[in-house]
Amino acid sequence: MKVFHYLDVEGEVVEEKEAKGVTVRWLITREMGAKNFAMRLFEVEVDGYTPLHSHPWEHEVFVLEGEGEVRGGDEVKRIMPGDVVFIPPNEMHQFKNRGKGKLKFICLVPYL
Amino acid sequence: MKVFHYLDVEGEVVEEKEAKGVTVRWLITREMGAKNFAMRLFEVEVDGYTPLHSHPWEHEVFVLEGEGEVRGGDEVKRIMPGDVVFIPPNEMHQFKNRGKGKLKFICLVPYL
Repeated sequence: MKVFHYLDVEGEVVEEKEAKGVTVRWLITREMGAKNFAMRLFEVEVDGYTPLHSHPWEHEVFVLEGEGEVRGGDEVKRIMPGDVVFIPPNEMHQFKNRGKGKLKFICLVPYL
Repeated sequence: MKVFHYLDVEGEVVEEKEAKGVTVRWLITREMGAKNFAMRLFEVEVDGYTPLHSHPWEHEVFVLEGEGEVRGGDEVKRIMPGDVVFIPPNEMHQFKNRGKGKLKFICLVPYL
C-alpha cells in the first residue's frame, strides 16, 4: 500500500487560459499502480475558477473546504464541505470559489 | 449533474462478522450513471474496524476526520485527516479507529 499526506504531493498550477487561481495535486495515479481511475485534489483561490469545459469522462467530486458554486449544463448550485458532485460525461461544467478562503475538493477521473 | 450533501445519503451498517462499528454511505454509484467507479464514505466508531480481507480490486482512500491506522500486507501505518491511501488489488487490508471520535474516510472502488 501507499500512505501519504496530500501536502506531500506537489501542486501544479493549472495553466489553461480559462482557469484562474487553480492548483492540482495528482494524488493517486497510474504510475502508482492505479489502473482504473485517478484521484486529484484541487485548490481554487478566492475569486478563482476552473475552465468552463466538457470532455468524454465523468467527474466524481467531494468538497473538503471552502464555499463555491458548480455549473453543470444549465444548472448552478452552491457547494460547501461535505457536498458530493457527479458530473456525467460530456456535460459542460465549471467550479468557482465564492468564499473568503480556498476552495478545496477531491476530483476523480477514470482512465478510459 | 448531481449535487447533494453526504449526510443526505442513508448509511448502511456493514454487517460482516469481522467488522465492528462500521457504516457505509454509497455516494456515487452505477445507478446514478457512474459507469467506471463508485464513491463511498465510511464511518468507523471508536474502537471499530473494517474486516481484514483482500479482493481483486483496488481502494483509493482520502481520510476526512478522526485518527486511525491502516494495515496493508505486513505494514501498519497511522492515518489522520488529509492522508491518502492506495491499496492495490489483492492486498490484505484493514482500517481501525484509534482515536476518540469517529474515523471518516472516502473510499472509491472500480466497477470491474
